[in-house]
Amino acid sequence: MERAAFLHRPDSEYAYLYKADKLHVRLRTKKDDVKSVEIISGDPYLINEDKWYEETQAMKKIAQTEDYDYWLIELGAKYRRVQYAFALTGWDREQLFYGDRGIFKLTDTVKEKAENYFRMPYFQEIDRFKAPEWVKETVWYQIFPERFDNGDASNDPAGTLKWGSKNPATTDFFGGDLQGVIDHLDYLEELGINGLYFCPIFKATSNHKYDTIDYFEIDPDFGDKAKFKELVDEAHKRGFKIMLDAVFNHFGNHSPQWQDVLEHGEHSKYKNWFQIHDFPVQEGDEDSRRDLNFDTFAFTPRMPKLNTANPEVIDYLLEIATYWIKEFNIDAWRLDVANEVDHHFWKKFYKATTAIKADFYILGEIWHSSQSWLQGDEFHAVMNYAYTETIVNYFVKKEISATKLASGLFEQLMLYREQTNQVMFNCLDSHDTARLLTLCNGDKDLAKMTLAFTFLQQGSPCIYYGTEIGMDGGNDPDCRKCMVWDPEKQDLDFLSFMKKLIQLRKEEQKVLSYGQLIFNELNNDTRFLVFSRNEQDSKVTAYFNSDDTEQEVIINGTLLLTQNVAVEGNKAIISKNGFLIIK
Amino acid sequence: MERAAFLHRPDSEYAYLYKADKLHVRLRTKKDDVKSVEIISGDPYLINEDKWYEETQAMKKIAQTEDYDYWLIELGAKYRRVQYAFALTGWDREQLFYGDRGIFKLTDTVKEKAENYFRMPYFQEIDRFKAPEWVKETVWYQIFPERFDNGDASNDPAGTLKWGSKNPATTDFFGGDLQGVIDHLDYLEELGINGLYFCPIFKATSNHKYDTIDYFEIDPDFGDKAKFKELVDEAHKRGFKIMLDAVFNHFGNHSPQWQDVLEHGEHSKYKNWFQIHDFPVQEGDEDSRRDLNFDTFAFTPRMPKLNTANPEVIDYLLEIATYWIKEFNIDAWRLDVANEVDHHFWKKFYKATTAIKADFYILGEIWHSSQSWLQGDEFHAVMNYAYTETIVNYFVKKEISATKLASGLFEQLMLYREQTNQVMFNCLDSHDTARLLTLCNGDKDLAKMTLAFTFLQQGSPCIYYGTEIGMDGGNDPDCRKCMVWDPEKQDLDFLSFMKKLIQLRKEEQKVLSYGQLIFNELNNDTRFLVFSRNEQDSKVTAYFNSDDTEQEVIINGTLLLTQNVAVEGNKAIISKNGFLIIK
Repeated sequence: MERAAFLHRPDSEYAYLYKADKLHVRLRTKKDDVKSVEIISGDPYLINEDKWYEETQAMKKIAQTEDYDYWLIELGAKYRRVQYAFALTGWDREQLFYGDRGIFKLTDTVKEKAENYFRMPYFQEIDRFKAPEWVKETVWYQIFPERFDNGDASNDPAGTLKWGSKNPATTDFFGGDLQGVIDHLDYLEELGINGLYFCPIFKATSNHKYDTIDYFEIDPDFGDKAKFKELVDEAHKRGFKIMLDAVFNHFGNHSPQWQDVLEHGEHSKYKNWFQIHDFPVQEGDEDSRRDLNFDTFAFTPRMPKLNTANPEVIDYLLEIATYWIKEFNIDAWRLDVANEVDHHFWKKFYKATTAIKADFYILGEIWHSSQSWLQGDEFHAVMNYAYTETIVNYFVKKEISATKLASGLFEQLMLYREQTNQVMFNCLDSHDTARLLTLCNGDKDLAKMTLAFTFLQQGSPCIYYGTEIGMDGGNDPDCRKCMVWDPEKQDLDFLSFMKKLIQLRKEEQKVLSYGQLIFNELNNDTRFLVFSRNEQDSKVTAYFNSDDTEQEVIINGTLLLTQNVAVEGNKAIISKNGFLIIK
Repeated sequence: MERAAFLHRPDSEYAYLYKADKLHVRLRTKKDDVKSVEIISGDPYLINEDKWYEETQAMKKIAQTEDYDYWLIELGAKYRRVQYAFALTGWDREQLFYGDRGIFKLTDTVKEKAENYFRMPYFQEIDRFKAPEWVKETVWYQIFPERFDNGDASNDPAGTLKWGSKNPATTDFFGGDLQGVIDHLDYLEELGINGLYFCPIFKATSNHKYDTIDYFEIDPDFGDKAKFKELVDEAHKRGFKIMLDAVFNHFGNHSPQWQDVLEHGEHSKYKNWFQIHDFPVQEGDEDSRRDLNFDTFAFTPRMPKLNTANPEVIDYLLEIATYWIKEFNIDAWRLDVANEVDHHFWKKFYKATTAIKADFYILGEIWHSSQSWLQGDEFHAVMNYAYTETIVNYFVKKEISATKLASGLFEQLMLYREQTNQVMFNCLDSHDTARLLTLCNGDKDLAKMTLAFTFLQQGSPCIYYGTEIGMDGGNDPDCRKCMVWDPEKQDLDFLSFMKKLIQLRKEEQKVLSYGQLIFNELNNDTRFLVFSRNEQDSKVTAYFNSDDTEQEVIINGTLLLTQNVAVEGNKAIISKNGFLIIK
């Protein structure tokens, strides 16, 4: 066996409480190298007395990637504490023991030594990663408020353009507002979504409002607090959850605090609110952006970075975070540039928000591996870009094989605890990226197929406004076009498809949240995928054909949703960009 | 190359801020598999503009174990944020790229993609692991108070035995107390130690005082608060630090809280202070210990486990933790059974104690891998049993080869950040284990050699009381014999040796705290070791001979300490259990 590939890390996503009385233990080995793995486990204080190392339990291989096999077992423990190690048998018949002090030949002497075992010293319920149940049941809908609908002309900023009169430029305003959202809540209810994710709505200068001036005010272009309260209440009546976007990495340069620093320099009472290297602070421009004497988001002089280690800043930001929960009853925060803010702050943020609302959801914007933020005391989930990027690379860009698709998905799933994966945020596009349909070069069947595959994964799917009616758009600002409300210009077939897909997701939510992902066929010759999601007695199976060649399958269950499929009796012919989902 | 053996974990001991502006990046590969590793790194927002991926920096191989090679580089970053990935060249000439999205062939296309890189999003000083400087300069001395000296007969408990009149049984009392320690502070100062680690001194029933009744009282057998204050002040005058032992996993059954639960059952106001499954609580005995209706330490009915998730318990324990710092100015807590108490509690404990005294030291008793407690917001260090056990296995038990010695030491060092290793707590014996000299079957040269090797390692060494005068003792309670104060019965040669060794440790502290550990010769045929500790311009080299065969070396430096060495000119002959330390 390839000993050097063995990987386990105690008290991490490799060994964690899944439920109060159930420990999940994972192990990584080299791909196709290990024939079987048994776990040896028992109470730390009974090893000599009970000789529990004489019995073992088989672990199950739950994932294979390009380089690795992953194994899992769920363990209970009468006294809520456990020691464990792995007994591995290779295809080469070698037998090894892998535990806290390394890798040994599997001998009685090795098994008898207590110190050779990994340890979960006690099942601490308070340390267990917990995620809000409702998120698993949620299909999100992302709204860029300036472009959803102009429901109230009286709050239009000067120079507001006629709705949809042109493709947006970076600085255009079209008058979208909160009333525009309220006006379409019935539409959204009929669509079937049940979570609204808003890009920033606080007072700011730009149309995207990421350059916050005042976090305690609704941007007057969008409405006021009474209007926002009405929106939340109306949405809650329909069973929708509300998620707002918090930009806590930096302020906008028009914020009073930053303006005070510019004016008073080292005499400003806000001088320690930012990351300033020396005084006087030189406001930068594009040319000087590499030589600023203060830290910024990226190289954007108009977005000075906050010092979130400063207690005054912490108090201020937590005041904001809790204000919108206490006063307006919002259900979730999406945290912009969350990776560039310190862990100390996020731990305080978690405590402050969940103390008010126990099932509050905290979603970090992080594009890379995020284990250190997902230990159960900072975020519940991150925006799952690496996961959905793999889906796009397979279906849309066709850059990777089925093996690499499975590999990419499993590598991401194995980075996090099972209960984290259940509430990850899966979006295929957003205000930051080209729209899915544009990535698909306008191929609507391809876009629908990609959406269907994503909806069948663990995690909560999110639809970017307009996707459901076939909107397209290139990179920012083109992906921020005005929502099309004229039914003549909407793709009503797409809309009907999305309603069915959302319905399916909600009806099969349990198996899609909890079920294991199993690829039944990974065919790298034809681009034809078969996989299932399995959870105890429940199972959803899906066939996805990206190939030019038709694929024939025997239907062995109830049809849930199809596209480009011809059914004859129990036979189905799946054409290109077709799929068949059965249970 | 063996791709499956590559290991890096962002934002962990594999990538951490070492100093405010210096990031340490480590990588693990299979032993002897990779010829060289280069790091590709740069600012996340400049990858396209600056094409920094065209330049690389070489990583250094810093450790080899039985299975792995470990590589390190120290990185700075002008804008305090960095992306990085590894370019590996195998002995087979293969070239691979290893980053956040997996392992790829090393091509330009792969190098150009920002998402392929690991990320340290921002150098967060507040999240950096910081350890108190003084711990690195400390040589600890562990005192079991009941057995150090009886300085005040007036506080002797009933039935106190004459000092040293017999080998201790489990329930014996010999009258040791705080005055006994005060009386010998000059002795300890002359010995050279500068940190006192006390086993519990709070009010309890047993002679070991681990079954606490009242954490706010000094045990009357030992003295009172005034006496303890005198002890701390006198110790501080001599530059000694004081570490007390906190048992926060469980109470003793005589504690008023537990007695209240026994008496009032579910009507007790302390019913949620413990881990009780149902009422009435049945006080257990040895026969029922597996069927108790409350959780205990191990299977000890007289040590009911605390519910450290209960805010009342948290407040109570933090009150204790801070009381002894505020009122008596102690410098460190050693935390008993620290692994069985939850992380949430320890994070609060860290905040509360370091808020009062910024350079307070928190030491956890954990016997297994402890990464999750050593992230910078719980403990500074753990009792380094796995490290010292490896030393004992090589020198004393002679169970392992030199290769396995090096492997065992490096595996432990690679589990933790460099700044953690600098303050780990290295003891060869304690009140819980047989004494070193007994493990050595009375071979004093062997014991001294083992101590010398330990004193040359990273981390703070600790001497168990009496080791310095050649005391022996088997497992508990034999290792808790009365300290010998009659000079006739002390081994004064041993004492003189220990003074020199402590002196050496203090004089060479910088290189011993910061220097890299390098084994120059790992000879598995003869049991002869050569290694050095290197730090910039400073270097200590040591030759240790456990072999029956004499070893001849050329002395290339200044002699610091020797044992069983015959020196002739620049030649040294090292006999069995001999060693030579030069700089």
